[in-house]
Amino acid sequence: MTEGADVDAVTRAIAERRQLVNEAIPQQLPIKRPERLYEASRYLLDAGGKRLRPTVLLLTSEALMDVPPLEEDYREFPAPNGTIDMMVAAVSVEIIQSFTLIHDDIMDDDDMRRGVPAVHNEFDLSTAILAGDTLYAKAFENMLETGATAERSVRALSELSTTCTKICEGQSFDIDFETREEVTTDEYLEMVELKTAVLYAAAASIPAILLGKDDAVDALYQYGLNVGRAFQIQDDLLDLTTPSEKLGKQRGSDLVENKQTIITLHARQQGVDVDSLVPEDDVEAVEEETIEQAVATLEEAGSIDFARDLAHDLIEEGKEHLQVLPDNGARDRLADIADFLVEREY
Amino acid sequence: MTEGADVDAVTRAIAERRQLVNEAIPQQLPIKRPERLYEASRYLLDAGGKRLRPTVLLLTSEALMDVPPLEEDYREFPAPNGTIDMMVAAVSVEIIQSFTLIHDDIMDDDDMRRGVPAVHNEFDLSTAILAGDTLYAKAFENMLETGATAERSVRALSELSTTCTKICEGQSFDIDFETREEVTTDEYLEMVELKTAVLYAAAASIPAILLGKDDAVDALYQYGLNVGRAFQIQDDLLDLTTPSEKLGKQRGSDLVENKQTIITLHARQQGVDVDSLVPEDDVEAVEEETIEQAVATLEEAGSIDFARDLAHDLIEEGKEHLQVLPDNGARDRLADIADFLVEREY
Repeated sequence: MTEGADVDAVTRAIAERRQLVNEAIPQQLPIKRPERLYEASRYLLDAGGKRLRPTVLLLTSEALMDVPPLEEDYREFPAPNGTIDMMVAAVSVEIIQSFTLIHDDIMDDDDMRRGVPAVHNEFDLSTAILAGDTLYAKAFENMLETGATAERSVRALSELSTTCTKICEGQSFDIDFETREEVTTDEYLEMVELKTAVLYAAAASIPAILLGKDDAVDALYQYGLNVGRAFQIQDDLLDLTTPSEKLGKQRGSDLVENKQTIITLHARQQGVDVDSLVPEDDVEAVEEETIEQAVATLEEAGSIDFARDLAHDLIEEGKEHLQVLPDNGARDRLADIADFLVEREY
Repeated sequence: MTEGADVDAVTRAIAERRQLVNEAIPQQLPIKRPERLYEASRYLLDAGGKRLRPTVLLLTSEALMDVPPLEEDYREFPAPNGTIDMMVAAVSVEIIQSFTLIHDDIMDDDDMRRGVPAVHNEFDLSTAILAGDTLYAKAFENMLETGATAERSVRALSELSTTCTKICEGQSFDIDFETREEVTTDEYLEMVELKTAVLYAAAASIPAILLGKDDAVDALYQYGLNVGRAFQIQDDLLDLTTPSEKLGKQRGSDLVENKQTIITLHARQQGVDVDSLVPEDDVEAVEEETIEQAVATLEEAGSIDFARDLAHDLIEEGKEHLQVLPDNGARDRLADIADFLVEREY
């Protein structure tokens, strides 16, 4: 495996697949009666997104079948017996992601998402709940349309439904942690695994299920799980270490909002009085100097390094699991994506 | 087919199966970590319910396989090849019903359900959204556990997911109708079909899918669809014709709350000034005499008879489709349930 991401190659690999996924979304989720419902269902999907999970799914498919990247039509992707529509599986995973964002924004009372109003703001609460529910069903409908054998479809559906259950459990823990006095780093990591990582794990392993590459399913699941965990830890780090203008929001906003992260939980375990680090409660009112001082304290406690090392270890472990794949360009890009997720600065 | 329900037989048939479904629910949906999430998910299911949809599913299974009612274990139900767990399919359908109730109560701002606080009241908004989402995934997980062949499982899952999409569409139309000036009776019936009837249709047809009785799928679907439509129309009728003490709520509350029903929509089409029938906006403040006068006006317009005739016709049409089944006791009970739904007084 290469050390460090080939940034150009990975950026291009994501951009090329994002374009194809963006074209497939309106085909798989057309606006029809009742229009307002489908417009709300499409709203966040149309607002953008990196399409990382479908990209992982499509790259994994190419790596497994050892075909040159982008040479095969994802709609008629070569399987051991006949072809399957891998794009509907990719869209299915992205639809699940979008459904969770819509409902999470209601629960977290977040007003904005991807630079546009959250669905419950742009439309209304009822429409947002219902748009999420519609996407949920559409994700399953799409995953049933790959044309894979019934046995493989059943296993993919089973993976998708247990993934959804886990995402709900993770979100439940996350909400619970907001009001709990003591949360351990292990509990936090369990929450991250459930809320975030399992969907990456599903994206990476479902191609192996659909293509009948049973020996690769577990390793690819672990790749996705580790990459997904690292992704969330990197998000926690970026909030503290990236300048506000690059981040697109106030640096240290997690500290201002008293959000538990792997960094603050570690610091707490080291005896740092995390609650006093940033006395302000308003992101607008906080001074850059206060944040800098807080970050310095967290650095002294070893909490920043703890998170960085953890993300790095997870990525390395994740990449190890890619050994299950043939040595090819798509596998290199999956390794790049892993590195890229922890090397990115915003 | 018999004319009129054998009330004793149908009441017993429902009660016996309800008991078995009630025992299966905690087995299929155990309370586990995070406890609050699973407690919220189980809350409405544990609060009661007639279990009509699972009863229809179990009776249809017995009728299809021509086995004496309740003689076979639903957990090891005889299929043409081996046995399948028909109870998990029954629980799956009940879980879908419960999920829609939880989310609908949020959207409709309803405080009470089945004599207990709605989930968003007993817990909170976030937990209620998440409990519904969890049930959604659990319904699919359960439907995948029947042990039917992969081909049949895929078809059942497909039926379940398109049913969920339609329920969302129906709820969307229902919300839309609240603020629309003109709604035709045809539009209303389309909404009822989507919001209510398709789940009865799924309950009636999924056993035929799982048992490989392909020739019976369409007819059983039509049975469920017609019964489900009639069920909602009867609900609309009962609100006007059943005394408050029997109804468990103020008679005519739909009129007070300006809720569109098949009766008011028909009356509007006859030129009745429906909005003026009950000037009061508060269910507590309305006088029995006002309701009686309003009902008399709706009767004069032929709207009550229109709804009654429609429900009756739908039930008769629904029962016709039962001819696809062998002539046996379970089939008789399915006919009884159809009659019972429009003969019930509350």
